[in-house]
Amino acid sequence: MSTSSSAAFDAGRGPAEHDVRTQIIEAATAHFSHYGYDKTTVSDLAKAIGFSKAYIYKFFASKQAIGEVICTNCLAQIEGEVHAALEGVQAPPDRLRVLFTVIVEASLRLFLQDRRLYEIAVAAATDQWSSTQAYKGRIRQLIEEILKEGRASGVFERATPLEATSHAVYQVLVPYLNPVTLPHLSALHAESPTALQDLVLRSLAPQRK
Amino acid sequence: MSTSSSAAFDAGRGPAEHDVRTQIIEAATAHFSHYGYDKTTVSDLAKAIGFSKAYIYKFFASKQAIGEVICTNCLAQIEGEVHAALEGVQAPPDRLRVLFTVIVEASLRLFLQDRRLYEIAVAAATDQWSSTQAYKGRIRQLIEEILKEGRASGVFERATPLEATSHAVYQVLVPYLNPVTLPHLSALHAESPTALQDLVLRSLAPQRK
Repeated sequence: MSTSSSAAFDAGRGPAEHDVRTQIIEAATAHFSHYGYDKTTVSDLAKAIGFSKAYIYKFFASKQAIGEVICTNCLAQIEGEVHAALEGVQAPPDRLRVLFTVIVEASLRLFLQDRRLYEIAVAAATDQWSSTQAYKGRIRQLIEEILKEGRASGVFERATPLEATSHAVYQVLVPYLNPVTLPHLSALHAESPTALQDLVLRSLAPQRK
Repeated sequence: MSTSSSAAFDAGRGPAEHDVRTQIIEAATAHFSHYGYDKTTVSDLAKAIGFSKAYIYKFFASKQAIGEVICTNCLAQIEGEVHAALEGVQAPPDRLRVLFTVIVEASLRLFLQDRRLYEIAVAAATDQWSSTQAYKGRIRQLIEEILKEGRASGVFERATPLEATSHAVYQVLVPYLNPVTLPHLSALHAESPTALQDLVLRSLAPQRK
């Protein structure tokens, strides 16, 4: 597609603009997936899609801005899997198990299946892009909610401060959410996939007196 | 030192050989620390020390073999600090706390203080050098011994299999032993330095019935 024909997208504002953004993201995902994120410039990308560099910059401020959207899509897919798996699971200990199991498996699959897109995930984790920070914040929140439910129903202890204990559980999980640390831990995880969740659940058990 | 003068080291066998090895390791540590491990070749190193490349190869089969010794020395320093700190600490829960605290602090300091030597640690962790594998095995063993002592004295639960539970505790700690994963976790650790040990100790508490 040439720059002149792309002017059509600007005619109607909102939805057309949304379409162009989607088109750029799809083309960029395919391009990064083939040539890698690190080595690709916005010029390379523009040439490959058939847009001018200036036209791409109308929609995205930088290569990182494009990477952020791809990263957000990837994290949204992981979160989507987690929430789908949690649907209908009521007991807080089971919910915690499902969260640990699904998020680790989905992260392993999505971060590590595509070595080229993996570069985006690494840049996002290393430079602490806002998409990954927001994602981690939501997971931390989800853990706190599950703990709250468990305390309310009496299956989890209530002796420790909720926030500190949620933080600790999140800290056990977080090395498995990060694409840089994950490959260094996947062998240990494979050796015993429920070891960490067993340990965490024992730490949350109420002390019978 | 020139290659001709270094022949003196070969006169007496054992201890002289040991001296040359030490001399090469010390010079290599200084050189890597200044120029980086990744970019330095054995030729660069030989030139800097004033030995011939062939002479260095008499003592070390490869650059990695030199890196392995430097890595072993670094890990021995961390372990030395851990064992010194454990001396005189009797109660198994306290021993576990000391292990967690000292090993994380020493690793942060030693792996991250020197960005150039850090490259060696990264190569060691990424390519799973035998020095790091052996080190991790000894830490795993130490955790199992502390758990065993705690079970014998009744301060830790005995309901779970010792080996599986030791594995789980080790799995909580291991992201902090690896120089690649450590920088991604240090902020979270600083936020709450005892959160993980508190969680682990609660998971080990005997259930009172």
